[in-house]
Amino acid sequence: MNSHFSPVALEHASRLINHGPTVLVTSAHGASRNVMAAAWSMPVEFTPPRIAIVIDKRTYTRELASASGSFGVCVPGAAAADLTYAVGSTSGRDIDKFARFGIAAMAGPVLGLPLIEAGCVAWLECRLIREPHTEDAYDTCFGEVVSAAADPRIFEQGRWSLRGDNADLHTLHHLGAGNFACAGNVIQARPLAGEIAE
Amino acid sequence: MNSHFSPVALEHASRLINHGPTVLVTSAHGASRNVMAAAWSMPVEFTPPRIAIVIDKRTYTRELASASGSFGVCVPGAAAADLTYAVGSTSGRDIDKFARFGIAAMAGPVLGLPLIEAGCVAWLECRLIREPHTEDAYDTCFGEVVSAAADPRIFEQGRWSLRGDNADLHTLHHLGAGNFACAGNVIQARPLAGEIAE
Repeated sequence: MNSHFSPVALEHASRLINHGPTVLVTSAHGASRNVMAAAWSMPVEFTPPRIAIVIDKRTYTRELASASGSFGVCVPGAAAADLTYAVGSTSGRDIDKFARFGIAAMAGPVLGLPLIEAGCVAWLECRLIREPHTEDAYDTCFGEVVSAAADPRIFEQGRWSLRGDNADLHTLHHLGAGNFACAGNVIQARPLAGEIAE
Repeated sequence: MNSHFSPVALEHASRLINHGPTVLVTSAHGASRNVMAAAWSMPVEFTPPRIAIVIDKRTYTRELASASGSFGVCVPGAAAADLTYAVGSTSGRDIDKFARFGIAAMAGPVLGLPLIEAGCVAWLECRLIREPHTEDAYDTCFGEVVSAAADPRIFEQGRWSLRGDNADLHTLHHLGAGNFACAGNVIQARPLAGEIAE
C-alpha cells in the first residue's frame, strides 16, 4: 500500500462525512469490482463509527456489497468533480470503471476493498450491517467503519481544515445534474446571549 | 402564514438536503414545541420524497416527534450559524428555545409544525414513518415530506443557486465543535473521455 494518507482514529471516522459530502462507494467480490457516486450518506453514530448510505438495489455496487458484506467510501475533493460525475453516470455492469477512467485503486488494510486516493481526500472501509428491511424499503444500507484514513493536508488530528490554500481538496456536495458545491468559507459559531447562564 | 418563501414541488423536495446541509429539526405536541440542530440527515428517495435523519432517543425532539408522528426540517443559511449552534447545544426540556433565542415560528400548512424562515432558506414538513427497529438501533428516523418551501433568492424551479451575491444564504455543513463550512464555489462537472461512446 503506497499511501500519502494518514490513518484516522476510528472515533473520528464519522467526522469524515459529518458535513454531508458526496462520496464514491467502492465494492469488490471475487474478481469483480466497482465504484459509484452517492450523494446520500450520513453518520449515525460516532462510537462505534457507523454510517448509513443509500445504494439503489438495482446497482451493481449493491450486488457486490451484498455478496461481500462490505463496501468502501472514498471522499472526493474538488479536483475530482468530473470523475465523481462520470462514475455516477455509468454502470459497472457494462464496464470496469477503474480501467475506463484510469482510476488507481489500492487494497484496503482491513477488508481489502478497492480504495481511491488520487483526487480523493479520505476513505473508510465499512462492514455491511445486514438490515434486510431497511435495505429493501429505503435502499438504506448501514455499515460499521473498520478503518479510515485521510489526506493530512486537509484532515488532521480528527478535524477538517478547509483553507484557501487547499481549495482543490475541498469536498463536493451534489446539488443535482452534475452541479457540485464545494465546502469552504468556514464559520466558527459564537455563543448567543441566550446561551449564557443568567 | 406570512411567508416570503415559495412552495417547492414535492418531487423536488429531496434536493433541499441532497448536498448534506446541517438542519434544524422542529417538533410540537400539545402545548410543547422544540427545535434542535441535526448534522446527520439525507434523502432516501425522490418520489415519494422521503428522508432519513438521526434524532437521538434521549432528546426532547425525539419525544415530541414520536408523540405527534411528525417533524419539521428547516435549512439554516450562513447568517444563522450562531443560532444553529445554540439550538444544538441546549435542551428543550429546560427552556423554550423559540422564546429564549427569539426565534419566530409559523405553523406549517399541512401538519402545523413550527417552521422557521428568518435565517433559514428552506423547510420541509415530514410525517414520521414508524420504523421501531431502526429508530432504536441507530436513532435513525424516516420521514415522508408532505410540504416544502424555499427562499426563491437561493432555490428556484427545483434548483439551488449558490452565487456570490447570496453568500448569507449559503447552507451550513457542520465540521464539528461549532465549525461550519458553507456550500459555495459551484462546479459544473464535464464529461470525461471514458464517458463518450466509442
